[in-house]
This record gives sequence, structure tokens and C-alpha cells, in this order.
Amino acid sequence: MSTAEIDQLARLLAKLPGLGARSSRRAVLALLKRRETLGEPLVRALREAFDKVRACGVCGNLDSIDPCGICASQRRDRQTILVCEEVEDLWAMERAQSYGGLYHVLGGKLSAIDAVGPEDLGIDRLMARIQADDVKEVILALGATVDGQTTAHYIAERLAGLAVNVSRLGHGVPVGGELNYLDEGTLQAALRARQKLTL
Amino acid sequence: MSTAEIDQLARLLAKLPGLGARSSRRAVLALLKRRETLGEPLVRALREAFDKVRACGVCGNLDSIDPCGICASQRRDRQTILVCEEVEDLWAMERAQSYGGLYHVLGGKLSAIDAVGPEDLGIDRLMARIQADDVKEVILALGATVDGQTTAHYIAERLAGLAVNVSRLGHGVPVGGELNYLDEGTLQAALRARQKLTL
Repeated sequence: MSTAEIDQLARLLAKLPGLGARSSRRAVLALLKRRETLGEPLVRALREAFDKVRACGVCGNLDSIDPCGICASQRRDRQTILVCEEVEDLWAMERAQSYGGLYHVLGGKLSAIDAVGPEDLGIDRLMARIQADDVKEVILALGATVDGQTTAHYIAERLAGLAVNVSRLGHGVPVGGELNYLDEGTLQAALRARQKLTL
Repeated sequence: MSTAEIDQLARLLAKLPGLGARSSRRAVLALLKRRETLGEPLVRALREAFDKVRACGVCGNLDSIDPCGICASQRRDRQTILVCEEVEDLWAMERAQSYGGLYHVLGGKLSAIDAVGPEDLGIDRLMARIQADDVKEVILALGATVDGQTTAHYIAERLAGLAVNVSRLGHGVPVGGELNYLDEGTLQAALRARQKLTL
């Protein structure tokens, strides 16, 4: 019914996270109907991003400069490294505007099922960086999943011999979260992490 | 935090139906991480679609040929025209595989608030087509919304003087739908449209 060009475009858009079969068809129509204001600018923005954006050779962040703006900044605490799984996690931390150190993006997590080992995540590179740059604290901001925690545990063990403080993010009730929507694990962690109320 | 190129790409993707601020950032990362298998093919598919796909001069469908494949087909009933709001609706009807006539895509609906009048929808062009092509039935497959029904009513009035049957799609309980999730209007319509059970 629809043409090969439309089908191919919808098929590719459906591979984007958040778009399914139906929404990708709606997206194709939006792109074709708003060719001048949306479609063509999107093609230019994709070209621009593919031409300019690269992974930072130091931390794995995405930027148009290498080392990235964060690694190059002299205003950040260069003795603290926050280790996270994906660039998305780095962006989320930056949006929270409460961390001023450097990052290290692993690009994944250890996984027996997906056969992802320490060498795939460049953990040797992280170790070398920590030793070379006189890092004082490593924050393991990995997902609270089995693989995330396995990865955190592995890195913590590798760091055990070094003179560096290792921490992880606190677990608890998300701000704005309602208790009856939370899983037992989170509630148990939140209870253990309870804090004295000072009035 | 992220670069201008990434921000611009995320901003444009967020304009697509179905993608919000967060999912468009995830989409940017997917496109950058899977540049060869997803990003570059998407740019090519967009280019291809923009180069080739045009609105059919007869019915408003999108296709790489004009008149479109449906208008050009000799296997379709050329005396029946189904009038719908958007190309998406045409696609939905085609997926249902139970209509074999031609289409007319208005590209919108009459709306006092959005100042969309009959001339914006090319309703004169629809009238001319119905008269010139000896059309016997017009199916008004417009949305069951106020604007959709206003549009249907307007077109029905314009068609009143012509020797053409005018119908609309039946209202009722969607197949697979549960009664307690339906609004009163649908239930009232479904009751009025009740059909005798033959055992």
C-alpha cells in the first residue's frame, strides 16, 4: 500500500528506542508533511552530528572535541571519577547539577549472558587512568541491576589495592516516588538507609 | 553539557510524534552508537523518501508515483470514494483489507478554532472529482470528533444534490474492546446500532 521508500523509512525509525511500528509510521508522515521545517533540518542535524560528534578518548563521553568539554575543563574536580554505564547516565548526572568531578563511561556492563568481559569495557584503561591522574575517589554509579552490581563489585575489587576511596550511589525512595509503587528491594534499601530527622 | 550538534538533533527528534525530551535523547545515542547500521541508513532513507515521495495529485495519498498506486489501479472500484482526514487513515483502512475503492485525503478537518475552512481542505476539488468520475458512493470516514463530524456534515450537505450515495463508518464497540473502558457516547451508539443475532 505505502511505497518502498516509506516502508524503509518507517522500518528504520521503528528501531529507535521509544518508537514502535505505529508511531514510526506517524513519524514518517510528520517528516513528509513538514519536510521543510522538520524533515530537511533533521537530515542536516544527523549529518552534522555524524560528522562532528566523537567519543572522548579519555572518558567515553560524546562531544565535538576530544578530550571532551568535561575532561578539558579546569573548573572540575580532577581527582574524582564517576564511573557509569552509558553516556545517557553521564547526561542524567549533569542534569542533576550536583556533581563536579570527571567521568568514565564504560559503554556497557559485565554480562555473562551477553559475553561482555572486563576487556570489552576497557576497565584496564580506567585503572591506568586512576593511577596516572592521582585520583582520590571513584564513585561507582552503575545500575542497581544484577549486571550493574556485578560490574561495580568487579571494579571495586580491582581498586582494592589502590589508595582511592570507592563509593556507590545511595539507594532509596526516588524523590516524588510513592511507596506503594516501589519494589521490595528498594523499600528494604530505603529502610536500611533511613536518616535521623532533625527538627 | 552535551554539544550543540547533539542538542539540535535531540530537539528535532523530540518534534516527532511519540518522542519526548527523554526518548529523543535516547534516540540520539542509539543513532550515534549505531551509526553504520542505523544512523547512516536513516539519513539515506530520509533523503530517498524526500526525493521520491509526493502527494498524489488526485487523492492526496503519498506515493513515489503520481497518480498514486491506488488511483492508478484498474483492479479497484472506481465508483466509490472513501473520504478521510489524513494519509494515516488511508493506511489504516488499507491494513484492514476490506475496502477496494478509491480514496480522498482531505489533509485535515474543518475547524473554527484552527481557522480551517472548506477551501483549505480542497473540498471543491473533491466535488469536481465526484462529478467528473461518475462516482456512485462516497464514504465519509472522518473522525468521531466534533470537527470530524462537522466536516462530514458539511460534505454531506454539499453532496445532497448529486446522485450519489453518502455513508459514514458505523459506530460501536471496537473489536476486542471491553465495555467498562468505553465512553458513554460509544455505548449509546453501539446500542442504537445493535444487530439481531441469528443462531
